[in-house]
Amino acid sequence: MNAMSLQKVRQLPLVITMGDPAGIGPEIIVQALARRPDLLGQVVVAGDVPTMERARELLSMDPARVLPQVREVGAVDAPQEEVPAIRVVQACGRHRLVPFGQLSGVAGQAAAECIAAAARWTLAGKASAMVTAPVHKEALAAAGLPHPGHTEYLQALAAEHQNLPVDRVPVRMMLSAPGLATVLVSIHVSLRAALGSLSTEGILETVRITAAHFSRCGVPTARIAVAGLNPHAGEGGLFGREDIDVIGPAVASARALGIDASGPHAPDTVFMRARQGAFDVVVAMYHDQGLIPIKLLGLEHGVNTTLGLPLIRTSPDHGTAFDLAGSGRADPSSLLAAIDAAFAMSAGAQ
Amino acid sequence: MNAMSLQKVRQLPLVITMGDPAGIGPEIIVQALARRPDLLGQVVVAGDVPTMERARELLSMDPARVLPQVREVGAVDAPQEEVPAIRVVQACGRHRLVPFGQLSGVAGQAAAECIAAAARWTLAGKASAMVTAPVHKEALAAAGLPHPGHTEYLQALAAEHQNLPVDRVPVRMMLSAPGLATVLVSIHVSLRAALGSLSTEGILETVRITAAHFSRCGVPTARIAVAGLNPHAGEGGLFGREDIDVIGPAVASARALGIDASGPHAPDTVFMRARQGAFDVVVAMYHDQGLIPIKLLGLEHGVNTTLGLPLIRTSPDHGTAFDLAGSGRADPSSLLAAIDAAFAMSAGAQ
Repeated sequence: MNAMSLQKVRQLPLVITMGDPAGIGPEIIVQALARRPDLLGQVVVAGDVPTMERARELLSMDPARVLPQVREVGAVDAPQEEVPAIRVVQACGRHRLVPFGQLSGVAGQAAAECIAAAARWTLAGKASAMVTAPVHKEALAAAGLPHPGHTEYLQALAAEHQNLPVDRVPVRMMLSAPGLATVLVSIHVSLRAALGSLSTEGILETVRITAAHFSRCGVPTARIAVAGLNPHAGEGGLFGREDIDVIGPAVASARALGIDASGPHAPDTVFMRARQGAFDVVVAMYHDQGLIPIKLLGLEHGVNTTLGLPLIRTSPDHGTAFDLAGSGRADPSSLLAAIDAAFAMSAGAQ
Repeated sequence: MNAMSLQKVRQLPLVITMGDPAGIGPEIIVQALARRPDLLGQVVVAGDVPTMERARELLSMDPARVLPQVREVGAVDAPQEEVPAIRVVQACGRHRLVPFGQLSGVAGQAAAECIAAAARWTLAGKASAMVTAPVHKEALAAAGLPHPGHTEYLQALAAEHQNLPVDRVPVRMMLSAPGLATVLVSIHVSLRAALGSLSTEGILETVRITAAHFSRCGVPTARIAVAGLNPHAGEGGLFGREDIDVIGPAVASARALGIDASGPHAPDTVFMRARQGAFDVVVAMYHDQGLIPIKLLGLEHGVNTTLGLPLIRTSPDHGTAFDLAGSGRADPSSLLAAIDAAFAMSAGAQ
């Protein structure tokens, strides 16, 4: 990309959703922006202004911290003012301040409204990408949201925007840690069910979604390693046939589509090789195959990216941490990593 | 342990087997001892003297390398001479030098005889531990050895020594990398078969063998984390029942035996937590669950330890590398890590 288009990206703000107001979301946003004031002019929070102000007040009790002000702005594309501040658009109905660490429908409702607003702005091209602070699944349910979490809700919003049925917007989760990225074929199902549901179509779709994401982010020839399922990728059929019968054909089909996919690779070394630079991303066959190496490389820098959506969305790799909320001790590193990743992806996207 | 017993351990040599003479074993032994001359007085090689001499000559073609001499000694407990050298006991029948990188029954036979000699010396208390350089499974088969690899052969030799049937000497593989150790419940079977064979008894036996190993090495209260099988260890049964029905009871039984076992832990974070110091070792439910984190932490420092044998045996975490044999480019780091681990374990054992 050239300097002018970089300039354009930098002018489009990135939206950060507040997350569940009873969780650590508001305070890690304030902490992240206090630590990195260079971001202030480039991000807008979709949140509840009093909740964001409470987070700032809470953190300002530590005199060692120098915190930017919280400033309400009328819209995501409001012109910047001279003194940088944490710019917040009131993206949910005004509500009473919710107690820290308490699950409630009020909190879930506010979190959901902020997600919807951020998605709308991003889909409308008013924001370059969205970064979501953690929500609590039970709070969303208590608010009557018919989607269990961010991913499904964003999938529904995107389908509506594109005028497609939801199943035509297949999504996948990508997890990144420094030097390693992995996309999961399946997520929250038992290992037995993950094995049972493994299919050439599902793996191929994962590889295609992965290739499309990298292509959109300016890497049209991403080297996609497809992990095997069995030890040593089955050692020629000696330890299971899935690598040959199910995964191999998916890799072949992806290559026929012009995607630089390879594998199935021995699962125990493919992540190490990717980290050493042999691949840009690893497609993992089940939750822990991909998550074990990512978490080992450092939970605090983990980033979750939803692939398959018509927008860029990243999030920190942790939850609402109700037990820490209000303490000011939550670590904003993963959120900062998610913000940096979203900026990098949207820069490539222009 | 006190200083006197440490002295005693240091007096008992450690045996290193040569491995397949057509592989990288001989040259990484010479390289390891050239890099760490402090080890010369403490180790004896069970090998073929001309093969070890060839490895030394090969490496001495690089004038930048200063190599100790190879010296044949008559027995593992031969008194040391004044000038330190790579001491080799002719542990196999004298045979013609085998070509580098070529699979042969001659090479397999030599490798097998060296293993048998080293095991006998160690079982007889003439050596503190054994470290095995890599063998080639097909070469062992070509030599007519009825055991597919080191582990099964050592198991048979140990059973014979203890006058027990082989199935009364259950063994497990422990893999270690800097800061992380894991013991595998199952190894070279398909993931589907690993799932199908998971049993409370097998897990409990793994935990017991692990506890016995640490106890023998001077850590009677090792903190043993038992990994779950399903994402988030099943999240209370939501993603599979094995964590509750199969793994949980094994942990409870181990605790009833006085073993400091815990779990089942969420697989995606238990290795990270172990590395941070929360546990001494993780019991992994299947090959890649344990191997992915180990390899990610550095293949070059990986150590393989066989648990359950009445002797201490470690090995580097790589194979014969026939493609590298004779090039002098093979990395002795993993062998050195295996030697250091064996010394540490045998020091604790006294």
